[in-house]
Amino acid sequence: MATIRQLVIDILKPHEPTMLVIAQQVADTDGVSGVNAVLLEMDEEVRNIKFTIEGEDIDYDNVVAVIEDAGASVHSVDQVACGEYIVEDEPTAQD
Amino acid sequence: MATIRQLVIDILKPHEPTMLVIAQQVADTDGVSGVNAVLLEMDEEVRNIKFTIEGEDIDYDNVVAVIEDAGASVHSVDQVACGEYIVEDEPTAQD
Amino acid sequence: MATIRQLVIDILKPHEPTMLVIAQQVADTDGVSGVNAVLLEMDEEVRNIKFTIEGEDIDYDNVVAVIEDAGASVHSVDQVACGEYIVEDEPTAQD
Amino acid sequence: MATIRQLVIDILKPHEPTMLVIAQQVADTDGVSGVNAVLLEMDEEVRNIKFTIEGEDIDYDNVVAVIEDAGASVHSVDQVACGEYIVEDEPTAQD
Amino acid sequence: MATIRQLVIDILKPHEPTMLVIAQQVADTDGVSGVNAVLLEMDEEVRNIKFTIEGEDIDYDNVVAVIEDAGASVHSVDQVACGEYIVEDEPTAQD
Amino acid sequence: MATIRQLVIDILKPHEPTMLVIAQQVADTDGVSGVNAVLLEMDEEVRNIKFTIEGEDIDYDNVVAVIEDAGASVHSVDQVACGEYIVEDEPTAQD
Amino acid sequence: MATIRQLVIDILKPHEPTMLVIAQQVADTDGVSGVNAVLLEMDEEVRNIKFTIEGEDIDYDNVVAVIEDAGASVHSVDQVACGEYIVEDEPTAQD
Repeated sequence: MATIRQLVIDILKPHEPTMLVIAQQVADTDGVSGVNAVLLEMDEEVRNIKFTIEGEDIDYDNVVAVIEDAGASVHSVDQVACGEYIVEDEPTAQD
Repeated sequence: MATIRQLVIDILKPHEPTMLVIAQQVADTDGVSGVNAVLLEMDEEVRNIKFTIEGEDIDYDNVVAVIEDAGASVHSVDQVACGEYIVEDEPTAQD
Repeated sequence: MATIRQLVIDILKPHEPTMLVIAQQVADTDGVSGVNAVLLEMDEEVRNIKFTIEGEDIDYDNVVAVIEDAGASVHSVDQVACGEYIVEDEPTAQD
Repeated sequence: MATIRQLVIDILKPHEPTMLVIAQQVADTDGVSGVNAVLLEMDEEVRNIKFTIEGEDIDYDNVVAVIEDAGASVHSVDQVACGEYIVEDEPTAQD
Repeated sequence: MATIRQLVIDILKPHEPTMLVIAQQVADTDGVSGVNAVLLEMDEEVRNIKFTIEGEDIDYDNVVAVIEDAGASVHSVDQVACGEYIVEDEPTAQD
Repeated sequence: MATIRQLVIDILKPHEPTMLVIAQQVADTDGVSGVNAVLLEMDEEVRNIKFTIEGEDIDYDNVVAVIEDAGASVHSVDQVACGEYIVEDEPTAQD
Repeated sequence: MATIRQLVIDILKPHEPTMLVIAQQVADTDGVSGVNAVLLEMDEEVRNIKFTIEGEDIDYDNVVAVIEDAGASVHSVDQVACGEYIVEDEPTAQD
């Protein structure tokens, strides 16, 4: 099965634990090299965060398990790159 | 016949299987090196997804077969690059 | 005569043959290294496609002949680069 | 625990000490290589400043302590990158 | 006298000869290495074309003579770079 | 103390001395390698100028002294980078 | 005194001599390596032109003298870089 090398997901989380803590826990998952986390929106109850995850062989189910163990949830999978290297999204006239 | 090195297609798929699973199946096709998949739109029944596929010798018919076996369909072929290397679309004053 | 190294043309074609097939036929023409084809518009009868063609010595008349043999036509020549290397269009304050 | 390599935070501070002084104090913290500080807004009482902090192993609690010792406060954590290298935020069609 | 290394001109031409033919003739001029030609506007009588010309020592009067011999005319000189290398236009806050 | 490597300031000055003269005087200050000066606005009495100053070890107080000796004043400090290298401002979704 | 390495000026000139001739004369000045000249506006009497001048040691007074000897005048100095290398203008949140 082609390995997943980059994954962009949108998550929802309560105030605690912090974005930093969850990002570090995902970065510690097997097959993950690093994580970028961006705050998209914060309201009183919930923070909406975007994770860009890179690695040699990302295990999607493990990533979800780590996020859910932290009390957060995956709202959507926005982009994925899999195969021998990270293929970039190619902009076209139809975008 | 000149080899296809990059292919950008727009697909429609039901909720299952996931975008990840189809992207991995396409990446496992002969002549494909990697796939980028982006979620464009989701409504209740259907997800609209854009695939950027790269490889040394992409077989378009095999790619379509993999996608259709997964219960999805190719809505349009938006861009293709074929030949000795990937020629980029050149922006012009007519765009 | 200075060789043509890059050619950007706008073509009109019926449903068949596909954009892929015509792009591959142009890429197989003598002096052409590769082709990028982008779908610009599709209506019921006609598809409007933009070709970016690169090569060491592109023969414009051969390219037109291949396109017309496929049942398509060249609507306009939007950009051309000729000489010892590909000169890029230089943006200026008058654009 | 995955190391924090880049941290983007939004801080609020009174007129004194200056943005320069706080930036230098954060840059002197263990595990921090450098700091970029940008003035976002100034009104009569408060300045709103954005810090981009880079380092091999940033200690978030130390950074906060340095900022609070200077009489300023962290208003929000806007972005963090952690792991083996700095993963960049990947723009997607959902942004 | 400092040599001209890049010249951007706007020309007007009738239907014939084609943009390709004039671009090739200019590229064949002494001191010119290559030409980029872009179609800006076409109406019934006249085509408006932008030429970006590069070379080690472009002779402006020869370039004009080639264009006028082809039945076209130089409408304006939009940009020129001369000297030991191609100096790029530097964008400033006054633009 | 972490060294200042890049400083962006906004200054106000009368007609004389010129922007060139003040930029050269700041560039001659110890620890400064070079200066970029841009004219932002000119009205009858005052010119508003932006200075980007780079160096191995910029002394902010010396820079201010040079500017004030020239009859100009620092209106605001817009950005500073300090530490082992120039950290760039990282754009985020909160900008 | 720190050397001037890049100078962006706005000039006004009558129809003759041409922008090309003045650009070449400035490029021939001591300490200047090259010049980029862009046409900004043309009306019946006057052309407004932007010059980007680069060199190891640009003498501003000589540049002005060359421009004025050609019957043109310097309308404004828009940007200058001086010192050991060309420092670029750094965009900030205050721009």
